[in-house]
Formats: sequence, C-alpha cells, structure tokens
Amino acid sequence: MNNKELLARREKALGKGAPLFYREPINIIRGEGVYLFDDTGKRYIDMYNNVPCVGHAHPHVVEAMLKQAGTLNVHSRYLHESIVKYAERLAFHHDKSLTTTVFTCTGTEANEVAIMIARCSTGGRGIICTDAAYHGNSEEIRKLTHTPVGGKGEVRSIPFPQTYRPLQAGVSEAELTELYLAEVRRVIEEFAAAGIKLAGMLVCSILANEGLPNIPAGFMPRAVEMVREAGGLFIADEVQAGLCRSGRWWGYEVTGFIPDIVSMGKPLGNGFPLAGVIASEDLVNLFRASTRYFNTFASSPLQAAVGNAVLDVLEKEKLCENSADVGAYLRSRLAPLPARYDSIADIRGHGLFVGLEWVSDRTTKTPDKRGAAEAANRLKDKGFLVANAGALGNVLKIRPPLVFARQHADTFVDALDEVLQDMYGNS
Amino acid sequence: MNNKELLARREKALGKGAPLFYREPINIIRGEGVYLFDDTGKRYIDMYNNVPCVGHAHPHVVEAMLKQAGTLNVHSRYLHESIVKYAERLAFHHDKSLTTTVFTCTGTEANEVAIMIARCSTGGRGIICTDAAYHGNSEEIRKLTHTPVGGKGEVRSIPFPQTYRPLQAGVSEAELTELYLAEVRRVIEEFAAAGIKLAGMLVCSILANEGLPNIPAGFMPRAVEMVREAGGLFIADEVQAGLCRSGRWWGYEVTGFIPDIVSMGKPLGNGFPLAGVIASEDLVNLFRASTRYFNTFASSPLQAAVGNAVLDVLEKEKLCENSADVGAYLRSRLAPLPARYDSIADIRGHGLFVGLEWVSDRTTKTPDKRGAAEAANRLKDKGFLVANAGALGNVLKIRPPLVFARQHADTFVDALDEVLQDMYGNS
Repeated sequence: MNNKELLARREKALGKGAPLFYREPINIIRGEGVYLFDDTGKRYIDMYNNVPCVGHAHPHVVEAMLKQAGTLNVHSRYLHESIVKYAERLAFHHDKSLTTTVFTCTGTEANEVAIMIARCSTGGRGIICTDAAYHGNSEEIRKLTHTPVGGKGEVRSIPFPQTYRPLQAGVSEAELTELYLAEVRRVIEEFAAAGIKLAGMLVCSILANEGLPNIPAGFMPRAVEMVREAGGLFIADEVQAGLCRSGRWWGYEVTGFIPDIVSMGKPLGNGFPLAGVIASEDLVNLFRASTRYFNTFASSPLQAAVGNAVLDVLEKEKLCENSADVGAYLRSRLAPLPARYDSIADIRGHGLFVGLEWVSDRTTKTPDKRGAAEAANRLKDKGFLVANAGALGNVLKIRPPLVFARQHADTFVDALDEVLQDMYGNS
Repeated sequence: MNNKELLARREKALGKGAPLFYREPINIIRGEGVYLFDDTGKRYIDMYNNVPCVGHAHPHVVEAMLKQAGTLNVHSRYLHESIVKYAERLAFHHDKSLTTTVFTCTGTEANEVAIMIARCSTGGRGIICTDAAYHGNSEEIRKLTHTPVGGKGEVRSIPFPQTYRPLQAGVSEAELTELYLAEVRRVIEEFAAAGIKLAGMLVCSILANEGLPNIPAGFMPRAVEMVREAGGLFIADEVQAGLCRSGRWWGYEVTGFIPDIVSMGKPLGNGFPLAGVIASEDLVNLFRASTRYFNTFASSPLQAAVGNAVLDVLEKEKLCENSADVGAYLRSRLAPLPARYDSIADIRGHGLFVGLEWVSDRTTKTPDKRGAAEAANRLKDKGFLVANAGALGNVLKIRPPLVFARQHADTFVDALDEVLQDMYGNS
C-alpha cells in the first residue's frame, strides 16, 4: 500500500487532523539506536525523539519488557518489589528532599497529580504558569497551555522569562530577572486580590516548549522562594527536561533550583507509557490520604521492569555524561552558523536539547516559522529528523536519543550547512 | 525479604495509602492464564482481574509485544499501518455508526476525550452522570466520582437506576423506569434553568462501579433518546463493560442502546496501557480540528501490536462466547445460594462479571460491607482472588480473565460455599 492510500485509511480510522509531521509524511517501520528506517529502506538519523532516550529498540529494555510481560503484569494492589525498587532508584537520582513517587501512565496524568498534590497540601487553587507552555492534554492541564497573561481563572500566567526577546529592551540581565520576578509577584497579588489562595507554580525546568530560552540568571531559584513565601509549592515539569536530557539528571540542576514536586514522563519508559511525580513523603502521604489515588496501568510490574531497564542503560552507558559531552560538541559545531546565516539568530540549549532561533530580520527579530519548517522538511529529505517548535514555531528543535554520538553531530551539521546554503545562498 | 519489610519500603517509596488489597496483602510474582502465584508458591485462581482479559502472560500477546518493541516504537506523527488496522478492527466490532477512534493510554484519558468530544460538538458543558460512579482520576473526571444528586456545577448526577433498592418502593418495574427517567429530565431542566447548555450523559453501560444493578427495563435506550432530544450526546463508558466482558462485545449491547461516543480502556492491551474513544467520523474530525489532540505514548506501533494481538486471541479463542457461556454457568451454580444464606440477597451480572449483594438483613436490605470483605479475605486464603465493591462496598465482585472455564467456576462455588458455612453456619 502506498502512503496516499494509508493516509486515506488513517483519516477514516483515526480522524482527519490526527497530527503528522512533514509536508510529505513518512512511513517509519524500524528503529535501531539513533536510526529510523522508512518503508522504502531509507535511513534517517533521529534528531527529534527524546522518548526513546536510550535509543530505539534497545535490546536490554526489550528483553526486560519481554521477561516481565511473560511472567506477570498486574495492577498495584498486590505487593511487588520491582516498583518499589524503581521508585527508590528514581529518588536516588533526585535531590534528597524528593523521596516518594506516585506513578502514572502519561505526562498529562503526572501533571494532574502534581497539581493535586500542591492543591491538597496548600488548600489553595491558584496555579502560576508561563504564557507559552504545554503541560498536557486533559481538561485541567489544558488550562496551562498558551495561557494568556492576565485572566481571571485559577490558572494564570507570566510572560516566559528569556533574554532573546526580553520583556523590556535595553536593560541588564539582572534588571531583566527583576522584571520577570515582578510578573510572578503580580500574579500572586492578583490571586490574593481575587480571593484565590495560591497552590503553586508549575513550569518546565528548562522552558522546553517555550523554545529553550536562556533564562535570566537567578530567575528560577528566586521564583521558587517567592512562591514558597506566598504559601505555594513549586512544581518542576521534567517530562521533557528530565532523565539526562539536559546533560544533568534533571533540568532543575541546570537552571539551579530545587522544586517541591517534580513531574516526570516521556523518556522514563523509552516509549512504554510510564510517568510519575516525586515529592517529599509528607506531601505524597497527604495526597494519598486525600484522594485514594489509583491508576490501573501504573506502578505495575511491567512499568517497573521497563523503567528499571532504562535506568540500567543510562547508568551503565553513562548517557548523562554523553548528553553533556555530545551536546556541548554539537553546539560548538553549530556556533559558527549565526555569523554565516542571518536567519540563524540564536543557538540555545542544554545537553542534547538544542534550539536554533530562525528569524527573517535580525534587527526586528521577526520570527521565521516558515524558514524553520522549510529547513526541517529539507533535513528530512537528507535523512535527518528534526521539527520546528517553540512559542513562535520558529525554533528548530534538535533533541536526539541520548546515544547520539559526535560523528552524528558532524554529519548533521554538514547537512544543515548544505540546507542553509540551498535556502539562503553561499555566505 | 518478607512482606512486612517490603511493605515498609513501599510506604517510603510510594507513600502511605498507596492502595493494597486484603488484610494481609499478597506478594504476587507470576501469572499464567487464570492463575496467579505468590512468593510462597501458593496458587490463586484470579477471579478479579478484568485487565488481563485473555489471561495472564498470554504468549501471543507477549510475542507481539516483543516483536514490535524490538522493531519500532515511536509516536504517531509518522505514518504506521498497524494503528490504522487496529482502529479499523475495533470499529468492526462496534455498531456501524461508530467508525473513528482517538487513542489514549488510560481510561481516565479516554473519558477526558469523550467529554471533550461531547462538549466541542454540542457547545455545551453540562454532563449528567450517576451518583455512585467512578470514571477516572483526573481533576475533571473526578467530578463524576460519587457525585451527590443535586449540585450546582457542570457535572450533575441522577440516583443510579436499579431494581434492588428502588427509588420508590412498591412500584412496578415499568413505573420505576419512568421514575429514573424523570431524574434525567430533572437534571436536564436544572441545567437549562442554570443556563448551562447540555453536553451529554456519561455512564458505564452496565453500571459496574455502582454494583452491577439490574437496570429497570428500557431505561438506557430511553435515556439516550431524552439526552439527544435535549441536544446532548450519550457517552458509554466501556472501560469495564467492554471487550467481551458482558458476554457481548460491548456492554451497550447487553443493556440495549447505541451510544454516540464510547470510551474503552482496561482490557484492550491485556495490561499494556491502551485506551481510546470511538465515535462517528464527524464527531472525531471536529474534536481533532478543535483541539489538535496529541498523546505521546498513544497510537504507537507498540500499542497497536498489543491491541491487535488481544483482538486476535479474543476472536480465535472465541472468548466472547466463553464469557457468555461460563458466565451463565457460574450464575446457575451460584443461584441456590440466596435460598441457603440470608446474607446473599441478590446475584446479578452479565457474562463473566458477577456481583453478589451482601446484606445483614433481608427485609431492610441493610448493606453488609464487612461480610463481603470478610468473604473476600477468606476466599483469598482458599486461593481465590475477589474483592468487595459497589456503591455501598457490599457487593462481592467476581470478574475473572475471560479464559475462565466451567471447572474454575465449580471449584470457586465450592470454596464460596465453605466460606459461607464457616461464616454463617450450615443451612
């Protein structure tokens, strides 16, 4: 069957508008390590997928899944050691104040639980987020998606902190930090004025969906302080930022703060639905007593087997170190591009999560979503999978599996250079 | 490690109050077909778990999972035929009006999507549910959990329809149907009076959590009509009722109605996190256009492989027929009990989903939650896993994997008889 026929069947079976990448969608049939292969046998270097963090079809993870699925997979109202061990191992890699985990199946569910923990422990309802975030797809969590600044509800936003398009031009970074902190204070005061008790603030530790901005120095730890002083809890969404993506185990280590509650997701199961929330024992005990939370498919022996296998690989193959090392190398290889192409205005990121800011005019910083999307499509043709993203859709998102190596970075940068030459001419 | 030590570690790692079954929790380490085995080697007949519907560790499902996990598991923004095929196969088993599926990872997420579909297509917000339901654990779906009759919000309930503790004593079943329909009408009118446009009604097709009541004849199809006339859509929650559990493919076939939207979950993946919502193409297209819904772990090749494998087994091993046949046999073997034991006041159910209503007084119908829980604990000691459930916690819930056979029913009924004799003496 050709892709056109498959697409027609897909529209009937899954509905028109079930999201697809690329002008000409690709039919991926096999994966191995950093490689994906389509139905014509074409090989791609996967530079987009953070979920298969230890690489596509990693044999240790597949073996662990097989062994457990062939032995036992049942819900968590019976005792089972493996999920306890998995929770202990996750806690080991976190700050020591974070000890106790509630498992879920998806990042959306993790953020649901994170907010419930904040609300039931503070007695408040008000949540502060940023204005260009995405934290999940449920009715409640959708309130945190591209939340306009201002508003009257229980969820209110601040303009996301960044240095590239700052809240005010011509100020120092230290002043900028104060300006963004003033936004946090503003929302806290507006909640108070509206009689809405603060529950907390929920942000991605590295502001991934906002476009990986450089955050004005000191903003994160000072925002944490400010939220706590106002009686709220600080929730770090590590669904994208966590598990070695940033070159550290958790994004909050990179942006320098210690959250009260952490939601985790995407990479935990290398594609197996596995997510969760870690917090202090007291917070989790109170949440459990208040809600009697139960999640049929979560905390299962199968989730545990897969999660433990992913941790085995991360630890054994030293993928956190690889993420830091190859990420830095990739950024060093990309560094000359802004001088050669006006369209590439900014290169940002942490570890193996890099964003290239695409503009049509350097002075006005006019976002060029079209250019970034065009580049993604051309790179796909050359065998490299990336996508455009960010608050304005103009950031080329580079986020390969953590087994990505220096030679992959080299071939990618060469291909990107060719694409840029084709699009914008020699320079 | 003994169970006491494991329990202490579990409380630290997962929090106190992470739900557990039985006075003395059991440490299950292996499953096969209808059997579960604990760490002492003790074998149990699993009469509770609906999730592993084709049996624990079914080799065909394990093999399909292994093969796919070793080949490819990636999100759904690339084309892949298997998820399309799986959606087509699900649609084949549904009423022909239901054609198009949105996949999710959990039943909670499925009910989230179901309600969003109803809301975005009707423009309404009001949802009618029953007063003793459970449909999931998110902030929005929790509003449908044990929702008191009356109320002022967007979610309002009716007393769940039943013949055992009827809304009014001494009336005929036909009159009872009218009384419960009047409750639906009342909520519709209260929404209208409050200026809340109706979105729809969401109920489990067989009212599983309510305690599997006998529903007054004609209630369901007439409630569907009434909701549609008021501009709403009817959502069947088939997370527990569906996929052959009731002796038919879907619970709505047993209770005689055709829903607009169906949420599905638990058994779809035999324990792999897989759930979804099926509706008409038009409804799903509108939902997709309105929300751009995307779910990272859903619609994946791995979900599809597992879902297809479960359908293979259900079809090949004729488990729908087995559910109907063995379920009827089990109820026929249980039928003499109420005459022998006053505590067993009612036997209800469909297919391999049976409820025994436990009372301390036949005349007053005083629910005996303690008796049902005691029986569940004693049956566990004898090697049979069941639990007490229902609106009042006094219904012994019997819901084995669908590979449950007549000889298992025989050994169970003998054991239950012994337990009843021990608890209440010979009769």
